[in-house]
Amino acid sequence: MSILVVGSVAFDTLETPSGKANKILGGAATYFSLAASYFTDVRVIGVVGEDFTAEHEAVLTKRGIDTRGIEHADGLSFHWTGSYSGSLNEAKTLGTDLNVFATFSPKIPDAYKDSEYLFLANIDPVLQAEVRKQMPEVKMVCGDTMNYWIADHNENLKKVLKELDVLLINDGEARMLAGEQNMVKAAEAVMAMGPKALVIKHGEYGASAFFCDRSFAGTDGIAKPFRAPALPLSEVVDPTGAGDSFAGGFYGYIASQPKLTPGVFRRALFYGSVMGSFAVEKFGTERMQELSREEIEKRFGLFMEISHLEHARA
Amino acid sequence: MSILVVGSVAFDTLETPSGKANKILGGAATYFSLAASYFTDVRVIGVVGEDFTAEHEAVLTKRGIDTRGIEHADGLSFHWTGSYSGSLNEAKTLGTDLNVFATFSPKIPDAYKDSEYLFLANIDPVLQAEVRKQMPEVKMVCGDTMNYWIADHNENLKKVLKELDVLLINDGEARMLAGEQNMVKAAEAVMAMGPKALVIKHGEYGASAFFCDRSFAGTDGIAKPFRAPALPLSEVVDPTGAGDSFAGGFYGYIASQPKLTPGVFRRALFYGSVMGSFAVEKFGTERMQELSREEIEKRFGLFMEISHLEHARA
Repeated sequence: MSILVVGSVAFDTLETPSGKANKILGGAATYFSLAASYFTDVRVIGVVGEDFTAEHEAVLTKRGIDTRGIEHADGLSFHWTGSYSGSLNEAKTLGTDLNVFATFSPKIPDAYKDSEYLFLANIDPVLQAEVRKQMPEVKMVCGDTMNYWIADHNENLKKVLKELDVLLINDGEARMLAGEQNMVKAAEAVMAMGPKALVIKHGEYGASAFFCDRSFAGTDGIAKPFRAPALPLSEVVDPTGAGDSFAGGFYGYIASQPKLTPGVFRRALFYGSVMGSFAVEKFGTERMQELSREEIEKRFGLFMEISHLEHARA
Repeated sequence: MSILVVGSVAFDTLETPSGKANKILGGAATYFSLAASYFTDVRVIGVVGEDFTAEHEAVLTKRGIDTRGIEHADGLSFHWTGSYSGSLNEAKTLGTDLNVFATFSPKIPDAYKDSEYLFLANIDPVLQAEVRKQMPEVKMVCGDTMNYWIADHNENLKKVLKELDVLLINDGEARMLAGEQNMVKAAEAVMAMGPKALVIKHGEYGASAFFCDRSFAGTDGIAKPFRAPALPLSEVVDPTGAGDSFAGGFYGYIASQPKLTPGVFRRALFYGSVMGSFAVEKFGTERMQELSREEIEKRFGLFMEISHLEHARA
């Protein structure tokens, strides 16, 4: 099944304790697409500038990603500058040059219209809504957002939330969106805004899923939360894109399955964590470009071993 | 098998968003003993003052806990005053009145000498070392500590660490003790100080175990970490004693089993999380006093359901 993703295809200039990188390929849609491409077909909607070369595009097409929806505009691509320190859980943004993104108006190629899964990556909720409107027939809609949209574009964001099956955000964003510190209460408040399920990412501690739809419920029919671990890593080279790669693994796995069952949703969280754990091992999208499904399955097995009781000896 | 625990039996005056409590029974050894008492025999070494009445002692003896090692001294019991706000992950200490604890010198009754499991709760490492010395024949030693001892009594603490099979501390303490932000590297550095295994508690995110002893290894013989979830709770009434209750569930389960296998260690982490999740549901030790093994097993099942893939429908 095909996923259509709308989001940023961009350049990142960043510094981590492991080193520096200057204007490397990045962007939420890029990380998402690469991660999802190991599971299913992916089509991208975005905009790039003249600094986005054939070589950059090949990073996506080599993975079978359909880039016909990437518009080439005059000027420079979206460029983010940031740095990480300490626990690497949060980036300090040093610069956000929207460039061609400032006037972006997403247009969906006819060839994309039969996509069954829609992912609204972290962009202006007005653009998210525009894309959603152009894809009325999709089977499932997932989305992401960030503190900036929650704080300053709340009304527009609320309209998008009504359209979502699943929202993926981090702890701080969930608490901010709900205006509630307790994670369970925050999840309930966010789901009351529209999403049928909420995935809260906890960085190095993994992720939790909350469900308000009983079809996502556990063996006894009650919609209990589910927790997926993160892999303890002795080195995080570059945390950029970990959340988008998580989303790509999560949604890519879902789109690859015939039906969204509670078991599929839960395994999708593990695949999300798996892809997030790979993403941070090298700078930029490097690790996301070179994986094999075999490596992914092997790491899935490692996640089972670090979290499932029956995988230990007696 | 019997666990001997040395630690504080104390009174707590505290405030949480759910309410206030004045001089209620608390202390690390109290929470630990109550939690462990659902799994195995427990014997306590500690000191109390004249304000510790027969009624307080009955809280422990009703659970079958051996209190013969609790010394009754002139003066008042150890008294901690604190408050919680926001995420409830950290207490603000408003007062620490050591009282009779200031001159405490642990003496071990002869009836305790055959204890096979020793738990050194969070007290002055000099006292931890004294108790360890008096129990040379124990099968296993676990311990806890806190930022105060790590910062100001580091040399004494290092001597105790050499004697430990398992150290249980929280994230911040692990990073502080190791002088290292990365959790895996911090764990390795702490285990190089002595403990064969390290349990790092992440509050609402669960706990991780790290092993340097190959006998704790997974199915392929490699000592990988293991992660246990915490239960997402919509209300945390009082976080006091959650970590000590975790330790009691963890160690109580281990002591109840014929042999410490990798499987027993991992299940023990789940029982630790289970007891921690109960502890915070009511003020003080209230919830820890009234549990049944049936309730504990039921919650263990809930932990399986929120973390294990095969517990979801297809």
